[in-house]
Amino acid sequence: MKPWLRDETCDPRPGTRVMICSSSPMRSSLAAVLVFLFATTLAISQNQPQNTQAAAAAIEKAYSPQLLRELASLRDAALADDYAYRQVAHLTENIGPRPPGSPQAEVAVNYVADELRKLGLEVRLEEVKVRRWERGLETAELVEYPGQAPGTTQKIVLTALGRNTPTSAAGLTAEVVVVNSFDELKALGRQKVAGRIVLFNVPFDKQKAAAGSWGEAYGEAVAYRGDGAKAAAGLGAIASLVRSVGGADYRIPHTGWNDDADIPAGAVTSEDAELIAHLAAQGRVRMHLVLTSQNGPEVTSYNVVGDLKGSEHPEQVVVVSGHLDSWDLGTGAIDDAAGVAVAMETAQLLKQLHLHPKRTIRVIAWMDEENGGRGHDAYAKAHEADIVNHVAALESDLGAGHPLGFWAKITPDALPLLQPVQDILRTQGANLIKLVNESPGADIAPLAKAGVPAFGVLQDGRTYFNYHHTAADTLDKIVPQELRENGAALAVMGYVLASMTDPLPR
Amino acid sequence: MKPWLRDETCDPRPGTRVMICSSSPMRSSLAAVLVFLFATTLAISQNQPQNTQAAAAAIEKAYSPQLLRELASLRDAALADDYAYRQVAHLTENIGPRPPGSPQAEVAVNYVADELRKLGLEVRLEEVKVRRWERGLETAELVEYPGQAPGTTQKIVLTALGRNTPTSAAGLTAEVVVVNSFDELKALGRQKVAGRIVLFNVPFDKQKAAAGSWGEAYGEAVAYRGDGAKAAAGLGAIASLVRSVGGADYRIPHTGWNDDADIPAGAVTSEDAELIAHLAAQGRVRMHLVLTSQNGPEVTSYNVVGDLKGSEHPEQVVVVSGHLDSWDLGTGAIDDAAGVAVAMETAQLLKQLHLHPKRTIRVIAWMDEENGGRGHDAYAKAHEADIVNHVAALESDLGAGHPLGFWAKITPDALPLLQPVQDILRTQGANLIKLVNESPGADIAPLAKAGVPAFGVLQDGRTYFNYHHTAADTLDKIVPQELRENGAALAVMGYVLASMTDPLPR
Repeated sequence: MKPWLRDETCDPRPGTRVMICSSSPMRSSLAAVLVFLFATTLAISQNQPQNTQAAAAAIEKAYSPQLLRELASLRDAALADDYAYRQVAHLTENIGPRPPGSPQAEVAVNYVADELRKLGLEVRLEEVKVRRWERGLETAELVEYPGQAPGTTQKIVLTALGRNTPTSAAGLTAEVVVVNSFDELKALGRQKVAGRIVLFNVPFDKQKAAAGSWGEAYGEAVAYRGDGAKAAAGLGAIASLVRSVGGADYRIPHTGWNDDADIPAGAVTSEDAELIAHLAAQGRVRMHLVLTSQNGPEVTSYNVVGDLKGSEHPEQVVVVSGHLDSWDLGTGAIDDAAGVAVAMETAQLLKQLHLHPKRTIRVIAWMDEENGGRGHDAYAKAHEADIVNHVAALESDLGAGHPLGFWAKITPDALPLLQPVQDILRTQGANLIKLVNESPGADIAPLAKAGVPAFGVLQDGRTYFNYHHTAADTLDKIVPQELRENGAALAVMGYVLASMTDPLPR
Repeated sequence: MKPWLRDETCDPRPGTRVMICSSSPMRSSLAAVLVFLFATTLAISQNQPQNTQAAAAAIEKAYSPQLLRELASLRDAALADDYAYRQVAHLTENIGPRPPGSPQAEVAVNYVADELRKLGLEVRLEEVKVRRWERGLETAELVEYPGQAPGTTQKIVLTALGRNTPTSAAGLTAEVVVVNSFDELKALGRQKVAGRIVLFNVPFDKQKAAAGSWGEAYGEAVAYRGDGAKAAAGLGAIASLVRSVGGADYRIPHTGWNDDADIPAGAVTSEDAELIAHLAAQGRVRMHLVLTSQNGPEVTSYNVVGDLKGSEHPEQVVVVSGHLDSWDLGTGAIDDAAGVAVAMETAQLLKQLHLHPKRTIRVIAWMDEENGGRGHDAYAKAHEADIVNHVAALESDLGAGHPLGFWAKITPDALPLLQPVQDILRTQGANLIKLVNESPGADIAPLAKAGVPAFGVLQDGRTYFNYHHTAADTLDKIVPQELRENGAALAVMGYVLASMTDPLPR
């Protein structure tokens, strides 16, 4: 249902230092829509369009002297403010995990709506039909393996993947077949797969992630989480497990979306994947597996949409956004209470500084990013006729680490106009703008596809996938000052796009 | 029951570069017996006694030319061997967790005995009566807290401490009182503690640990794990929780020994401790707690004792050892299959190289280090009359990280005699010998107390307490080359102590 980007090529734009990257769209987890090769990003990390006479003239036309003056105060106020952190704290610690359709998600919707109203925004809840998915029992143990002590089993730590097809309460028991790729699975064939549990033991490349190519590391492994169960089911497997997609080595499993397969689908920890692989290399390994999740009925939830009306062109809209729903294992701090909070922070800073954008700034807290993306689909449908008035769409959904700048799906011709944004964010090292050909955010993808200039905050994601979709996605993972930096980046970019003389060219 | 060392003072020995450290013995977890302030260690990390004429003469007398020649080959063979790693792999992956009294511990006893017999050792199982403790259900949730979404609770991740007094199957529900020290608990008094659950929210100091003072960081926090429940029970608390003692931030709880209190005792993760503390600062927090462990009957287990008989003084014994039992959450790779494996490696290397120590090298795989230390108590009792013939005792129980050298409870006069050991281990950076006044190993403590020169392998422990006593203590935490380095250090020191002309002076 969702694109992500595994293979990417970047070419220098003739006569400039700007890099344009394109990629092969694939299907998978939604956060991954933002994932690009970090290594290539470095090539343009110092990107600074030559301030030619023409560019200077364009900037002079686009930015009023007042707008230019306001940017530094907006940045400085963001870097001194704790509003966003307090929002994340409330969403994660007082409300807790916010799976689509849960009571916590409902409370969170109303909480964000109320907070935005306090800031003076015109707030409405836009209906989204979501499918509730509830985790059940998730246990596994090896019941037969080489060297087994009589009367004992080995506990396996795992979690169900989203929209898992449950086992019975009693679970199932079968031999485990370990493969290291789709090709290996295919080579085994139906005879060696049917009736068995398949384990895709494909590691997340920690060294690659540490070196900056976390997007590539994620993309390589997450393909198995997304499509593994269907592939295994296609050869008659009765359950499918993946090695958790993430860089931590603390025996915690990573959940995530998988493409609705007809067999139970889970993720074991990297340690348990190694254990099973080692034992299976020595002899027969049989596992007892219980994954009793429930796919509940469709229920009504909401995107929270709050407008700070533009002073000159209220009909023109700049979206600043994050997603309010989360996985259930942790409390969804970095994924993505942080994104919602920094979007709210944009509105709070404008109110605090009495700044009035020419165009409407629309704060959106999206629903259902993790479980199918129905929130942005509903928005795109409801606003179909109005998309032409969306002059830009911004999203933050890669955590709360230090922001390096932005991914941007914009025309390269627009880049020189953003020079003042880069200048103002340079002091905090957030001045990178990386041009990309796919949407830099899952929830703004329909807008990006329709040609709306789209921006994703580009955080330093080297540790993001250690915590992503685990029980350890909790408030303590957020460094307050780094969250403030994200607030500054989003507010400055959002305010500029809503206050330039003309909308950014498409 | 066990000493550990929290406060330590180190003084330079007049006229030398040797540091002698003393400490106040305290009571707590057993691994912690090895814990000293790493910072002071650095002061003697380049320790190299001046090779005066007298020292040279002493070395010439103590070491035959042949012995000196053999040391390099012993080290080099260790650094090329994977025997120890294969032992850890079998103990952890094929056998699994080895709590005292468990079927896995029994299988492990027989496995190690068989392996030592294969190496030609005279092996016997020496009886140890152990108390079986079995973990049960361990769940908790906050059922009341500020900002709670209606109909929801917050899951708390925790584990029972060893020899926990269980709750009923239905658990208990009470208000949580958060304190940051024993003094704060005392100041609250019975009125505010009675009938409640106490949470000791004392963090493990990660920065201190990263800077090298992991021993100090551990000691500061583990006091609450050891004695917190008794202190809380003394004021009428109905359960006691500590913040997990360890440096990881992956929402994994750390179990460990606690001083048999009459109330349930558990450890929550650092994240959950923060959550509870934050919410309790805002208003009333109530928790439902289930910790249904079982204290089983006394059963018979064993220390595995394998002798490689000395060629000249078979009655004189050098003990090389680690402990075979482990906690149940992980598979006990770094605590302490690694220690057992490197002790076995000493025997394997001597066999491989056809080396014949003058004195008996006794490999011991201790039982019950984690649950009361009955293994070493039984050994001390059984060998009481024979302790005078123990010329040295060595243990490895601080993981499998790069060895820096040894802790040594020996007379300073003996230090110059170990110069050849330091010389041979200098190429791998394991040449430190740090003199201490307490036993450098829990299981060799009775021997050390009786005056037997005692050595503990001094590993780089900066990340040890991230995994210690957690589900993540698994094989992958061991770097094979670092394990080989430990094997080299233990084999060289053990062989020297068993082959010097005279035993090390007491």
